[in-house]
Amino acid sequence: VSTDAATLAERLLSGDRRALARAITQVEQDGPAGAELLRAVYPQSGGATVIGITGAPGSGKSSLVDRLIGAYRAKGRRVGVVAVDPSSAFSGGAILGDRVRMQQHATDPDVFIRSMATRGHLGGLSRATNDAVDLLDAARYDPLLVETVGVGQDEVEIVRTADCVVVVLVPGMGDDVQAIKAGILEIADLYVINKADREGADRLQTDLEQMLTLGPKTAARPAILRTVAVRGEGIDGLVAAIAAWLEQSGPARRAERRRERAASRLLAVLGERVMARLLAEGFGAGGFELAVQRIAERETDPYSAARAVLDRLEVSP
Amino acid sequence: VSTDAATLAERLLSGDRRALARAITQVEQDGPAGAELLRAVYPQSGGATVIGITGAPGSGKSSLVDRLIGAYRAKGRRVGVVAVDPSSAFSGGAILGDRVRMQQHATDPDVFIRSMATRGHLGGLSRATNDAVDLLDAARYDPLLVETVGVGQDEVEIVRTADCVVVVLVPGMGDDVQAIKAGILEIADLYVINKADREGADRLQTDLEQMLTLGPKTAARPAILRTVAVRGEGIDGLVAAIAAWLEQSGPARRAERRRERAASRLLAVLGERVMARLLAEGFGAGGFELAVQRIAERETDPYSAARAVLDRLEVSP
Repeated sequence: VSTDAATLAERLLSGDRRALARAITQVEQDGPAGAELLRAVYPQSGGATVIGITGAPGSGKSSLVDRLIGAYRAKGRRVGVVAVDPSSAFSGGAILGDRVRMQQHATDPDVFIRSMATRGHLGGLSRATNDAVDLLDAARYDPLLVETVGVGQDEVEIVRTADCVVVVLVPGMGDDVQAIKAGILEIADLYVINKADREGADRLQTDLEQMLTLGPKTAARPAILRTVAVRGEGIDGLVAAIAAWLEQSGPARRAERRRERAASRLLAVLGERVMARLLAEGFGAGGFELAVQRIAERETDPYSAARAVLDRLEVSP
Repeated sequence: VSTDAATLAERLLSGDRRALARAITQVEQDGPAGAELLRAVYPQSGGATVIGITGAPGSGKSSLVDRLIGAYRAKGRRVGVVAVDPSSAFSGGAILGDRVRMQQHATDPDVFIRSMATRGHLGGLSRATNDAVDLLDAARYDPLLVETVGVGQDEVEIVRTADCVVVVLVPGMGDDVQAIKAGILEIADLYVINKADREGADRLQTDLEQMLTLGPKTAARPAILRTVAVRGEGIDGLVAAIAAWLEQSGPARRAERRRERAASRLLAVLGERVMARLLAEGFGAGGFELAVQRIAERETDPYSAARAVLDRLEVSP
């Protein structure tokens, strides 16, 4: 570990918020500095409870997270939030108005909120988000709320291994949105019907219960909660349900999630590193560009080109 | 190439629809059979124009695709469609009602529609979808319409390298949805404001034009079209705009997209293969599971564990 990384790690562990912010930026940039830093603080992480909050666009996740921050603060907890936002080359960053609303907690020294950009290559977002969670964990924020839009494989992968996965639904969205939700239904530990004062809440609950009867019989049936996050209704019930779920699921389940999280991260880091190395060394004379050109011109195909690289690879025991 | 793959490839190339359906299933399953088949037909592919259609949930992409099928059929073209759908363990497959509406083309021998499941590991969906596109291309469907929900990195990656990328927007969706759209705005060659008879179409157009003025000045400003897909309005205009864009962007741009597509696919296939090999051979005694356990218990960290594998790797020149 270099002196710079050691110093930054020390400042982060001692509660320096600016050091934490810089550390997260470093893991987002995916350079050697971020990796060194993560290695330095990693032994201090792993204590915090990670709560994943996911749902379709427009389901009010951010308002819900905002209220959860307030509820955990009222219990004296230090709350960390990692929000995975769509971003744009046009705006240069997150453009969610919701994010602005959360600024009421911006001056609270015991709340740390960070938006991750969704740009970059496959798998990188999941890796960087998990790194940020560990940094917040090492800085002794607990619980950690991880908010993602519940669509897209990367986004699902990020919350899947949280200690408790909360899936947020909302009454009266179209078929298309219901379909999106289908992809995340199976990862839920708890369901929240948000905007529950809207027409269709009862029907959504019935539909959901029906769908759950089709699920695996072995696992505990996830509870269904109702909230109106913008008015703060049902938040205490949700906090209690999360606590009950964590209690009920027990240490074995928690250890299992942590193993899944470790596996997912190891694969992500290894994948990024090995691909970088193969791009640099794996393609012989002409390199990657020539291989691509030959595929584009139909002189070879992706499978044969990949095979040629694999044939050059040796793994010592 | 095995006899089985050669036979199936031959049947596919001669226009046998059942062979084509089976071939796509094989590439979805990602076994050696799919790879062999793709290699066999790959030289016959690359002629078709690939049109990517993407947009937020609820933007009416499927209705639009349905109308585009009709329009291209009226010109005597054979149309292939690959739709990337959210899917669920509960339903066992796609549950989009929209898909049913497209069944009006189901009996037309010159239309081939296939839904891809979004399950499976990172990157696999993109690889399988591109394989399916090549199979349809080799079976001489042209144009090929690739429809994805424009959220999630995988989903964006799939359409990004199409010959023409159509981004579908819709008036009057919430902030959250607008944010989702932001991630796909930068990949658009053409914009469609669908459901343009709704309130807010003018405002959306103004917002969009404003946003485009912030984009890179060098590239041609994408055109903005208006449609009401369910009533078939604006479809001929869209078809003309797609043709104009393809004409105007020229062969150099087309070749560039094809190179990008080739690069993306090579990386996807190589990534899957190399990771499978490293999982089997890269972790020494104790294997992957022990490494994961040690990370979960904070005895090591993901970066150090990945480094240990990379140190075992040799790439011959």
